[in-house]
Amino acid sequence: MSDCVFCKIASKEAPAEIIHETERVISFLDINPINFGHTLVIPKGHFKKFHEIPDEINQELIIVLSKVTKAITEALEPHGYNIFTNNGRFAGQAIMHCHFHIVPRYFNDGLKFRPTSKSYKKNEMKQFGDLIREKLKN
Amino acid sequence: MSDCVFCKIASKEAPAEIIHETERVISFLDINPINFGHTLVIPKGHFKKFHEIPDEINQELIIVLSKVTKAITEALEPHGYNIFTNNGRFAGQAIMHCHFHIVPRYFNDGLKFRPTSKSYKKNEMKQFGDLIREKLKN
Repeated sequence: MSDCVFCKIASKEAPAEIIHETERVISFLDINPINFGHTLVIPKGHFKKFHEIPDEINQELIIVLSKVTKAITEALEPHGYNIFTNNGRFAGQAIMHCHFHIVPRYFNDGLKFRPTSKSYKKNEMKQFGDLIREKLKN
Repeated sequence: MSDCVFCKIASKEAPAEIIHETERVISFLDINPINFGHTLVIPKGHFKKFHEIPDEINQELIIVLSKVTKAITEALEPHGYNIFTNNGRFAGQAIMHCHFHIVPRYFNDGLKFRPTSKSYKKNEMKQFGDLIREKLKN
């Protein structure tokens, strides 16, 4: 897409600190890092949300995600890392080209990713399970 | 691992609201959901962290992740979703068996995943890039 900054990074029309590249996947540093070394891994093709990416590209993407994560753990020796993808504006997606974040984490770095939990009432969990399983029958 | 609750769910020794299952990957509802329908997707084998999972299993896992995400979007019609995996205690990993969360999101649900950003100083971004790229040479 002509106005998408991640498409422009993929086609080298826009600059980025590129870390790794395969035929269909490119990885580069986030310019607004949560922690330094925060890396984005994206399909070069324009897909807005994760579940729109074809399986074949996802299979290339996850191999890159694993490889780049390994390199980050070796290079920066963090105490852990978060990998995430936000999909949709109300889920915090800012650039509408699906991207995976890899964020190195350190003891006491003050970040908190996991929000508060809710509780299912009696039988409610099974009801949600039924709804989702129904869609998996197709 | 004998004391791992996710291994027990995978082997059916512990109960769970199972959503989907393949040879090496199992998906079930999180009992402490961030939003209702919050689903976990895990390799049945015990791997503590994402980058320890063999590529072949990851390739099965991402196909399941996409399939289950599609089913959740169809079943619950959320406005978006977050997918994430926390790796290491200081990154918020509670169960030391790698797991991917799929969390359906809704307008104004009050959740905030993305913490504040840092800023790179001049040349610092390239230095981080160099460190990571160096490890990718192997």
